[in-house]
Amino acid sequence: MHDDAMTTSKPAASASRGLGDELPDTMRAWVLGGPDELSLQSKPMPVPGRAEVLVRIDAVAICATDLEVISYGTPAMIEGGAPFNKNFTPGHEYMGTVAALGPGVDEFRVGERVTVEIHAGCGQCKRCRMGMYTSCHNYGMNYGDHDKGHRANGFTTNGGFAEYAVNNINTLIRVPDQMSDEEATLVVTAGTSMYGLTELGGLVAGESVVVIGPGPIGLLAVAVAKALGASPVILIGTRESRNAIGQKLGADHVIDARSEDVVARVKELTGKGADYVVDCAGTETTVNQAVHMTNRGGRICLAAFPKSAVSFDLGALAVNNIYLYGIRGEGKSATHRAMAFMEAGRFDASLVHTHTFPLDDLPTALKHARERIDDAIKVVVSNQPGITGGAKGK
Amino acid sequence: MHDDAMTTSKPAASASRGLGDELPDTMRAWVLGGPDELSLQSKPMPVPGRAEVLVRIDAVAICATDLEVISYGTPAMIEGGAPFNKNFTPGHEYMGTVAALGPGVDEFRVGERVTVEIHAGCGQCKRCRMGMYTSCHNYGMNYGDHDKGHRANGFTTNGGFAEYAVNNINTLIRVPDQMSDEEATLVVTAGTSMYGLTELGGLVAGESVVVIGPGPIGLLAVAVAKALGASPVILIGTRESRNAIGQKLGADHVIDARSEDVVARVKELTGKGADYVVDCAGTETTVNQAVHMTNRGGRICLAAFPKSAVSFDLGALAVNNIYLYGIRGEGKSATHRAMAFMEAGRFDASLVHTHTFPLDDLPTALKHARERIDDAIKVVVSNQPGITGGAKGK
Amino acid sequence: MHDDAMTTSKPAASASRGLGDELPDTMRAWVLGGPDELSLQSKPMPVPGRAEVLVRIDAVAICATDLEVISYGTPAMIEGGAPFNKNFTPGHEYMGTVAALGPGVDEFRVGERVTVEIHAGCGQCKRCRMGMYTSCHNYGMNYGDHDKGHRANGFTTNGGFAEYAVNNINTLIRVPDQMSDEEATLVVTAGTSMYGLTELGGLVAGESVVVIGPGPIGLLAVAVAKALGASPVILIGTRESRNAIGQKLGADHVIDARSEDVVARVKELTGKGADYVVDCAGTETTVNQAVHMTNRGGRICLAAFPKSAVSFDLGALAVNNIYLYGIRGEGKSATHRAMAFMEAGRFDASLVHTHTFPLDDLPTALKHARERIDDAIKVVVSNQPGITGGAKGK
Amino acid sequence: MHDDAMTTSKPAASASRGLGDELPDTMRAWVLGGPDELSLQSKPMPVPGRAEVLVRIDAVAICATDLEVISYGTPAMIEGGAPFNKNFTPGHEYMGTVAALGPGVDEFRVGERVTVEIHAGCGQCKRCRMGMYTSCHNYGMNYGDHDKGHRANGFTTNGGFAEYAVNNINTLIRVPDQMSDEEATLVVTAGTSMYGLTELGGLVAGESVVVIGPGPIGLLAVAVAKALGASPVILIGTRESRNAIGQKLGADHVIDARSEDVVARVKELTGKGADYVVDCAGTETTVNQAVHMTNRGGRICLAAFPKSAVSFDLGALAVNNIYLYGIRGEGKSATHRAMAFMEAGRFDASLVHTHTFPLDDLPTALKHARERIDDAIKVVVSNQPGITGGAKGK
Repeated sequence: MHDDAMTTSKPAASASRGLGDELPDTMRAWVLGGPDELSLQSKPMPVPGRAEVLVRIDAVAICATDLEVISYGTPAMIEGGAPFNKNFTPGHEYMGTVAALGPGVDEFRVGERVTVEIHAGCGQCKRCRMGMYTSCHNYGMNYGDHDKGHRANGFTTNGGFAEYAVNNINTLIRVPDQMSDEEATLVVTAGTSMYGLTELGGLVAGESVVVIGPGPIGLLAVAVAKALGASPVILIGTRESRNAIGQKLGADHVIDARSEDVVARVKELTGKGADYVVDCAGTETTVNQAVHMTNRGGRICLAAFPKSAVSFDLGALAVNNIYLYGIRGEGKSATHRAMAFMEAGRFDASLVHTHTFPLDDLPTALKHARERIDDAIKVVVSNQPGITGGAKGK
Repeated sequence: MHDDAMTTSKPAASASRGLGDELPDTMRAWVLGGPDELSLQSKPMPVPGRAEVLVRIDAVAICATDLEVISYGTPAMIEGGAPFNKNFTPGHEYMGTVAALGPGVDEFRVGERVTVEIHAGCGQCKRCRMGMYTSCHNYGMNYGDHDKGHRANGFTTNGGFAEYAVNNINTLIRVPDQMSDEEATLVVTAGTSMYGLTELGGLVAGESVVVIGPGPIGLLAVAVAKALGASPVILIGTRESRNAIGQKLGADHVIDARSEDVVARVKELTGKGADYVVDCAGTETTVNQAVHMTNRGGRICLAAFPKSAVSFDLGALAVNNIYLYGIRGEGKSATHRAMAFMEAGRFDASLVHTHTFPLDDLPTALKHARERIDDAIKVVVSNQPGITGGAKGK
Repeated sequence: MHDDAMTTSKPAASASRGLGDELPDTMRAWVLGGPDELSLQSKPMPVPGRAEVLVRIDAVAICATDLEVISYGTPAMIEGGAPFNKNFTPGHEYMGTVAALGPGVDEFRVGERVTVEIHAGCGQCKRCRMGMYTSCHNYGMNYGDHDKGHRANGFTTNGGFAEYAVNNINTLIRVPDQMSDEEATLVVTAGTSMYGLTELGGLVAGESVVVIGPGPIGLLAVAVAKALGASPVILIGTRESRNAIGQKLGADHVIDARSEDVVARVKELTGKGADYVVDCAGTETTVNQAVHMTNRGGRICLAAFPKSAVSFDLGALAVNNIYLYGIRGEGKSATHRAMAFMEAGRFDASLVHTHTFPLDDLPTALKHARERIDDAIKVVVSNQPGITGGAKGK
Repeated sequence: MHDDAMTTSKPAASASRGLGDELPDTMRAWVLGGPDELSLQSKPMPVPGRAEVLVRIDAVAICATDLEVISYGTPAMIEGGAPFNKNFTPGHEYMGTVAALGPGVDEFRVGERVTVEIHAGCGQCKRCRMGMYTSCHNYGMNYGDHDKGHRANGFTTNGGFAEYAVNNINTLIRVPDQMSDEEATLVVTAGTSMYGLTELGGLVAGESVVVIGPGPIGLLAVAVAKALGASPVILIGTRESRNAIGQKLGADHVIDARSEDVVARVKELTGKGADYVVDCAGTETTVNQAVHMTNRGGRICLAAFPKSAVSFDLGALAVNNIYLYGIRGEGKSATHRAMAFMEAGRFDASLVHTHTFPLDDLPTALKHARERIDDAIKVVVSNQPGITGGAKGK
């Protein structure tokens, strides 16, 4: 079942609830006990510090990484161990409304709608000083005596499956009035795709881009590549329904990985092989395909990756002068560039949004995302009043 | 036995033999029949075309890749198959004297000493137009109807185990008077190391650099990194004698890979891991060590690589935002930068030169290089008169 | 008067005239005698060499620089003096159909429609080796004993006010079937704008871009900036009719330079000043405005420039860490990126095309362009049969 | 008169005075009243905050900009007006010893010797997020309600003509034991030169570099360019004694601007003109010379600049695709790269240090610097006990 109000951006009735002077002392938040143990609890309202704001969370999307964090912990990144039984609230793809300002903050006003990227670097380490804040050398160092100011929402600091969260102002992107809550939660996904293409070289117009894997990041990588003028944009996937969405988002060609020799087909479509490949599947098969379909001097971005070592053809990479790198989410303000395209209507990110549930139904939402129930792609949890939950548009 | 004349740069008596008007109609050249079948033959004197010169070869160093080409062919790069029984002359690390000019060439004069880099791109493809001429998309396209002008000395065009060779003027670097023939043959090796560091980021002063594998490229990578101001420069090797040369060339620390945990040791020396790693060994072990010893946002250059697929920890690469790429020899005019440092005496590249033999003794020279006889590192073949052959300085 | 056929891309009747085997021995071409003396003459058909093709010119647009070349010579760039009385044919913004191939060329086929960029670098100099072929150090060196292969259509080699011209294949961009001749002539203009933005930084989405001067390059700079996701895009001009076209091409704001304080207005619209400014007017007034409206660390591109020294506030540039550079036309394959956006329909470049005349009426066409008769912006000369000449769409 | 102790790095007797638990409640500091009115006063000891340390100042060099700040105020950069009568302490080229740590700081220990760069960006603005912290968009915003955390020592926050100063840890560079206090004060000057070359392109080895103006930044630009492998390095100056120091620091050629046509001479030495020009004089004459001696596609850095608008040949800049930018001091961690070269002994920065005076004699020191008394180049003020003041080595 679906409530029509779900896709309106900011229901007038609720616009000012829980902002500024109306702030309650406590909030509801999902808390991670042991692996896969989530419970809805009351927590004290967090207080923003210098260069921080409090965000009232209006909507939060579920990412595959959330499922991993909840079941297995974060990918070996937190100093001091797994997030279990630490009163930790996961969730990182959220948007909302500025509810309170930390001392000295005048960049934002209470009541502004914002969406957030995940990482705030420490600002002091070698990488942050280079502008590479998602590669912060103080990753995870934000507890106790070792607080270096690094924050990664829903990974190393409390995240968005809650009513409120504190955020460094570096992580905020303004949301235009006409954009729905749900679409705004997709900015960090689109920004991750944008960051991959940024790091692949920046000058993409007229170059060939292959995207492997039509998950949310892959589908939005198709959209972003097309918006940047890439040509052709080729999507490789196995699920026909998702490939079809890829075509709507701008894929010039779609290759069905089940029935075609993907490497041969890419070479046929591009001549010498692809200039850029974004691998959003990250399996042993796809990473080797990526190497073999990239042309001399071309570039590969791993937006997904195998959990353990795989057999990999490094020789083909080296003799062809191929550049390879991995990303973990967004970076270099790519979310702002993604928002610029989304605000201008260059692509309809909401095509990857399939379901919305209220915050209280987070377990249902997670189940839909994990089991791809009802062809779920992007499942969003909303804090707006009146959401009853279910597939979009039904 | 060793002739002292061997290390003088340009014996006066022979300075003008075989240049300009004195050019003979034929030359002696080693020709590759089947695998490992080399014979010294007479060939017609090659004629330089537009933007080309004829180089009288004075000295040529042996590279590990020459041994592979002679035994197995080139690394799958030549369109149209292996180099066997095609009247092909291998050898690519050569220097000499300009013997004749192609039409319109006024950038060089007959009699000038030059050393050469391997690759002349086609100048027409996407990569050449970007300045990436070693990633030319017309690699190997220099025969018959498909002559796109690409040349790779000793790989796709005739090389330097001969008296003369034609070269595009793009591949020439002037040799200063005071530099010996042998040292000048090392410019392409140093240029390869320089290119690796260029692609790793360019701004190396004060950053930590690890070099794995003290072969000629690795040892000169140590020297180049030190010249660029890297600090610390760490060399990982197994042969004590080579590690000692690495220290002379500027390694601040040497790690014995047989007795130490190299990853732990690098982290101990650098704190967060290395900023840059140049892998000149290219084994399954070293490529994974490289990933595990690089810090977040750091970079790895593969200057050597495994011949077949290996088990590789791509996940660690991705979660740490590591950049990886392979190089095949020099690029982006890095040979000129290497020569600038060598001419200024910033490092003594000749420390890696161990043996010299006359051209007629190429088989002996190859045997020394292949079997590392007498601790051979870089073995040079000289065309200068009076060379009798053997270890340097003995 | 205007013939409707004028805007069709390639009238079927004429598709194969003067191609391949049908090639005549001579062609008609406008020849520059003394300053401002143009006469239509018969010239021998030019013959393409290696890596070159013969292009049958179907249409050529008039650029302000053509007017300068015809009246004053080229901007001090040709070694060996001015272009007068040298049997020289000007014109550089042309497109057409491949009519014959030079030896070995298989990248194109006879009959393909192409548009051309101006510069083919020598391929041998330092800048060409870096990919900066429009900064070729052998600029103008393509005559007699000093032929280094550099070509600049209509500047240092014969151009497009003729029936045929020879072109290096590096300068060709394929034209899609559905694109009209006239629109295809605008690719080099759009490519110049694209190059300016490329050199300004590459990552433009979401950044503020100011364009000063709504001539053809300025108007297409607005279009390209918008296509790249810039926000806001601000156009500064004095002619209301042109500013209106700028809005159609994507300007978010238009500032009337006659009635507003442009620096104050840009700061009001951007907060801290603009991230990027493209000056397409190039007067003493505008270059100083550019410096004063750019924010700290921002970048300025001069796509036009004063003919003599002007009073310039270098101090403001330095204390604000501003980057400034000039461009002369396209570069770094930016024409291909411009074509990618034009082919995808991201902007309608033909909005700047106002008039078409037949080749025989070149003087009339030049007069319209020079005197802006009938609000002329981009005036095109067509070789297609049946063109009678006049304003578009009338 | 000169005390030999002056050049020792850290007299044992004083090593621990005024550190850690011994910290006094007040300190002596020179305070700027009206223009040119400095008085030595007692100020409360400053207290370091988060990510800050207190530095006990051991030595501080005088920069030409200090003279300007004292006489005229800062170059129009401080929001809120001039620095006069605000209890402000100037001085920015200082080094010293860590005296106390702010909360949570564990990157440094009390007692470590450090030298400091000037700028700590806000960490929140667009430029800081890109790594361009010296172009911070919150420059000067560190007072009262608008404290964004930006700091520029001696410009917008209290500086080094005092016993102690607070510094963001981002601005600190460790000083090796064997380096003297005086040499350590030169790191920010060398870092400024390094930053100029970094922004000029990064890959300098083998390229031609011209430095105009043998002041401290110019002389160290010669040294840094040479260390980076530039060839040739050409210095243009008018004072023979300073040109001679330039030769000791690595200039391959010195041009006397009083007796030679500097543009013609640079073209003679370089062929096509210089690849990079660093203008450290910044007059109308030199900025135009810089443009005319730079080759096509070359780059110019203004490390000094005219105070008001000058007649400037922008046309020559544009037609030659020249890149120009100004710097205000160091950036992009260039001070760390400069220190790497200085620690390795690549050049002797102390050649530009000519005089040392005790803190109490600051007016005498300023007079020497301003009037170039006794051929003064770099004049240092020392807080070490036993300094009596005068020329180095006399």
